[in-house]
Amino acid sequence: MEDIILAPGRYKDLYKSVSLSEKIQGLHQMIQQDFPYIHRVAVALFDTKMNTLKTFVQSAKEDRPFQFYECLMENAPSLMEIKTRKTNRVVNDMAVFNNGTHEHTQKIAANGYQASYSAPLFDETTFIGMLFFNAYQKNVFKTLDLAKLDLYAQLINSLVVNKLQATQMLVGAFRSCLSLVSYKDPETGNHLERMARYTRLIARELAKQGHPGLTDETIEHLFMFAPLHDIGKIGIPDRILRKPGRLDEEEWQIMQTHSTKGREIIDTIAGYLGVATFDQLSLLRNISGSHHETIDGKGYPNQLKKAEIPIETQIVSVADIFDALTSHRSYKPAWSNEAAFKELMQLSGTKLNPDCVRVLIENSAAVKEIQNRFSDDLRDHGR
Amino acid sequence: MEDIILAPGRYKDLYKSVSLSEKIQGLHQMIQQDFPYIHRVAVALFDTKMNTLKTFVQSAKEDRPFQFYECLMENAPSLMEIKTRKTNRVVNDMAVFNNGTHEHTQKIAANGYQASYSAPLFDETTFIGMLFFNAYQKNVFKTLDLAKLDLYAQLINSLVVNKLQATQMLVGAFRSCLSLVSYKDPETGNHLERMARYTRLIARELAKQGHPGLTDETIEHLFMFAPLHDIGKIGIPDRILRKPGRLDEEEWQIMQTHSTKGREIIDTIAGYLGVATFDQLSLLRNISGSHHETIDGKGYPNQLKKAEIPIETQIVSVADIFDALTSHRSYKPAWSNEAAFKELMQLSGTKLNPDCVRVLIENSAAVKEIQNRFSDDLRDHGR
Repeated sequence: MEDIILAPGRYKDLYKSVSLSEKIQGLHQMIQQDFPYIHRVAVALFDTKMNTLKTFVQSAKEDRPFQFYECLMENAPSLMEIKTRKTNRVVNDMAVFNNGTHEHTQKIAANGYQASYSAPLFDETTFIGMLFFNAYQKNVFKTLDLAKLDLYAQLINSLVVNKLQATQMLVGAFRSCLSLVSYKDPETGNHLERMARYTRLIARELAKQGHPGLTDETIEHLFMFAPLHDIGKIGIPDRILRKPGRLDEEEWQIMQTHSTKGREIIDTIAGYLGVATFDQLSLLRNISGSHHETIDGKGYPNQLKKAEIPIETQIVSVADIFDALTSHRSYKPAWSNEAAFKELMQLSGTKLNPDCVRVLIENSAAVKEIQNRFSDDLRDHGR
Repeated sequence: MEDIILAPGRYKDLYKSVSLSEKIQGLHQMIQQDFPYIHRVAVALFDTKMNTLKTFVQSAKEDRPFQFYECLMENAPSLMEIKTRKTNRVVNDMAVFNNGTHEHTQKIAANGYQASYSAPLFDETTFIGMLFFNAYQKNVFKTLDLAKLDLYAQLINSLVVNKLQATQMLVGAFRSCLSLVSYKDPETGNHLERMARYTRLIARELAKQGHPGLTDETIEHLFMFAPLHDIGKIGIPDRILRKPGRLDEEEWQIMQTHSTKGREIIDTIAGYLGVATFDQLSLLRNISGSHHETIDGKGYPNQLKKAEIPIETQIVSVADIFDALTSHRSYKPAWSNEAAFKELMQLSGTKLNPDCVRVLIENSAAVKEIQNRFSDDLRDHGR
């Protein structure tokens, strides 16, 4: 029977329900068996609406030159070319970029990387980001088996697509449900787009300042999930959800069940979608189930206090409230950013996480940019 | 600037919105550049509920030894071992199977294949099927770079997961919507499970008899989509959908809109899910939008005749009607298979496609097996 050989499954570590970061780290070890020179594997995501590349996951031995970083695609003409032509790019000596102005390349060089191999990532025909392999030695890519490296690149591409698809489908399924049931989000215009981006901004700044537990990967998922924090409202009767006047005590009690219902609906739908074990699901469960907790313990449904409230939830709360204050509503005009910041400061330390409030205010220029790009100005939309 | 090299994207053919079959065929060409001995690449899917392996997609030069084929996993102990141990298997001389009884292996040998390389496929921790590489020569796998071949296997694994995930999410999204809106499928028990399996049975038999346009890949998708044919009923008011008595003319007109609504809902949800270009979506659109057309042109909504009605739709209609007849309903007892077959024969040629009716009746043993396994017998379910 020597003609039948059971070979060990070399990649069986990929057959785990772990985060994409962990998968890429595991794969990096496999890659290093073939290509010991490759010291860094990194994936950046493309944001269509902002035309930016954002750090997403990476595996690097000693250092992490890029985290919590975002750059305009148009500032990287060579990456634009890779994207358009669907080609890969080998840079055998990054010294060629020494006189360049591209921050990305300078950062890479500053970390001692001397050569790189870059490939565009696609989900079928859609450009979704970039993959980078980096080495500390010059010219290594001249001698490597690029065809095999390309195969690894393709596998990484496919793993990224899998994980993103799971997230996007989850978000899409909820939006489908919202569109079919009578509930329509009472917030209009670009509210959800803006609050998702404030969420991302706050999370990234906290991460830069060393907040544990926030990685680029969780930040991107938080960004995608933030607009779903109120999903539980699907379960609230229209007569309460759309009541024009003030809710009475009983109605208010029912209204408050939307956070608990949100968590239940998420578990149900995740089951139907077969993603109940999806590693980022806890983010969505937390923001949906706990976004009305306040750090003084007077929120609902569980009167959680301070650190008992997951950080992702505290971030979403600040983002949501800030956009509500600065948006026009039937019952109030849009507040100025200054007035809204002042209000957030008032709530800071009792209702809201002070760090979340602080970094939002510190980044008022970025806030302004989000508002400009995702404005509700009717003239901008031809309505 | 010779230090910057733009390499052609070797795998850019994968960046297309094409069927999985086409992707595997394209990849097979790439594989043959490295491994000219590999003449066949095939993926079989695992059916958890039946414990079977089913042919799904393949790329083979001259012949297609396996199509429209299904075998019990327990009849293939060596595949069971591969699955459990997550190992790959090399068979350098398939003559070792000459005295074996496993039909699968015999069929492969009968087609002249002499060596094989098999790998289990997983979606994270879930076993989803098997991948087979076959060669006409003995012993070729002794000299091949198995590590690289494994990498191709891993890439194929990931491509299969991508496509299946899209289908499963689409189905899951609809079921989620059904669970959240007031509509509950009026058919109970295992109706949807059975009708999906009758659909698959009819489609596979038609395909065996040479019906053009039915591939293993479309058959598997049809199997997954069949239970959604009535999705449009989400859009029908409860007062009509659940009316105990007979519908009046106006109500009947509204009820009939469910097929058109179904197609619209599918397009909406596919848009939300970002799968509007998914290559198998037309199957779902057709069965949802046209399952009340009849071949005499007296159906609705478009009075299509005979071949104007997509074959997938005609198959689903027969499967659905047969299960309705043979199931207990509040207003009627379950008919015997014989009585139901007789009724289908009556409708054959005027309302129903005669070939679909014929192959169902010809396979009454398989029909019986489905009924036994997915019975509505209350005792079996402890209700």
